[in-house]
Amino acid sequence: MADDSRPIGIFDSGVGGLTVFRELSRHLPEESLVYLGDTARVPYGSKSRDTVIRYANACAQLLLKQDVKLLVVACNTASAFALDALKSTLSVPVVGVVEPGAYAALSRTKNNHIGVIGTVGTVASKAYTQAILHLRHNAAVYTQACPLFVPLAEEGWTTGDVPRLVAKNYLEPLLMRGIDTLVLGCTHYPLLASVIQETVGIGVTLVDSAEETARTVADVVKNHNLACSPGQIPQYRFLVSDAPENFLKTSRHFLKQVSAPVEWVDF
Amino acid sequence: MADDSRPIGIFDSGVGGLTVFRELSRHLPEESLVYLGDTARVPYGSKSRDTVIRYANACAQLLLKQDVKLLVVACNTASAFALDALKSTLSVPVVGVVEPGAYAALSRTKNNHIGVIGTVGTVASKAYTQAILHLRHNAAVYTQACPLFVPLAEEGWTTGDVPRLVAKNYLEPLLMRGIDTLVLGCTHYPLLASVIQETVGIGVTLVDSAEETARTVADVVKNHNLACSPGQIPQYRFLVSDAPENFLKTSRHFLKQVSAPVEWVDF
Repeated sequence: MADDSRPIGIFDSGVGGLTVFRELSRHLPEESLVYLGDTARVPYGSKSRDTVIRYANACAQLLLKQDVKLLVVACNTASAFALDALKSTLSVPVVGVVEPGAYAALSRTKNNHIGVIGTVGTVASKAYTQAILHLRHNAAVYTQACPLFVPLAEEGWTTGDVPRLVAKNYLEPLLMRGIDTLVLGCTHYPLLASVIQETVGIGVTLVDSAEETARTVADVVKNHNLACSPGQIPQYRFLVSDAPENFLKTSRHFLKQVSAPVEWVDF
Repeated sequence: MADDSRPIGIFDSGVGGLTVFRELSRHLPEESLVYLGDTARVPYGSKSRDTVIRYANACAQLLLKQDVKLLVVACNTASAFALDALKSTLSVPVVGVVEPGAYAALSRTKNNHIGVIGTVGTVASKAYTQAILHLRHNAAVYTQACPLFVPLAEEGWTTGDVPRLVAKNYLEPLLMRGIDTLVLGCTHYPLLASVIQETVGIGVTLVDSAEETARTVADVVKNHNLACSPGQIPQYRFLVSDAPENFLKTSRHFLKQVSAPVEWVDF
């Protein structure tokens, strides 16, 4: 029986990955978690493949120094660009959010017409399209970059005319394609879920990869014999590369019940 | 008579400072210019004072290695947070955009009620308010952070319902204060000038600090005896820390006639 008290590491470019943190704390309530938000370099979504890979490597190395037993890439852009590079170089299992999101989308679609929204980087990478087609080659995947959704979510403009108009602009072309499932391929987008749902209508199911990712992590923990001892009291830590006090404030949108120290790290 | 062929260095967090580059190339058409866009770390406007100072120092050091004779901090957030630190540590003259912007606003206001819009960082720094009150202690200064303006400009959504609604939300509180002058305290905002002007009405004069900054630089060049020899053919270079091809594309919104090589730099 496993008895591995080391924490699970999670990183994101900023606060968005806290949706994954939250699901992990629900699915694996006894596991310790250490979260790294690279708030000094945020956002990743508008940056190049090479730069995102470089930043993702730096995040991974920092978490390995915290002795993590498993690494979760909670950022969609980093998962899209850097997952293969991380998997091939790191000695611990690595889980991204794209494959779980693709799997979740396929388990929900009825007509095999799937929309994916994400950052410019995630969409350009075609990572979701490839992951979905790898699992079901006759699916039809339509993508749309939505660069204004992250600043809207961070500004807290999640209801009202502005997000409604922006959502209409981005999502109407996908609706014209007859999608019945829409992947929220960026960890910020669940904050805009209600305006997105209103725009696409109840005929379209929204898929947030956070929960599916947590399920995948639970499987990996089990299969790799990495579970902590039963009854362990989990320890949570948050590391950020800029402005811990802002992180603390914004994180309250994401985590209603969890609270833990936020530490500044330079890397 | 001066005969200093060294270039003038200009830096910004990204492409926005090209408005300053353009004005410099107009006011000092014989001077060579080297522009650094820190596109790997963009944006600065949402980051903390300490991080912005650290990044600004790194930009300055990189340009000093290019043997610049004068440094222009074209980014409002970096000017607001880091100008004093740079002035006190560098051996070349340093010019920011805040003081020229403050001066320009005061030369245009008739009722001494001045609005300033900028990033979260620039507004929090109070740099414009202090610079304006230092020049005219009985002026009234009203500030408003507009975090959605940069992504709107970068997305190219500069006309239509979305920018109009966003502008209305941000600017109405300033209009209630009776301003007759509005400082565009971020180098991206001139791209939204028409929707901003439409929102505030013709009774409010917009102030873009780029031109005033170029005038200040021309004065400093003259007063410090730094001018190049008359008739010099200027050389232009662009350095970026990420995605040279994106920079080239976006820079066409800013620079209609100038073209020059874009080089990737790591720092």
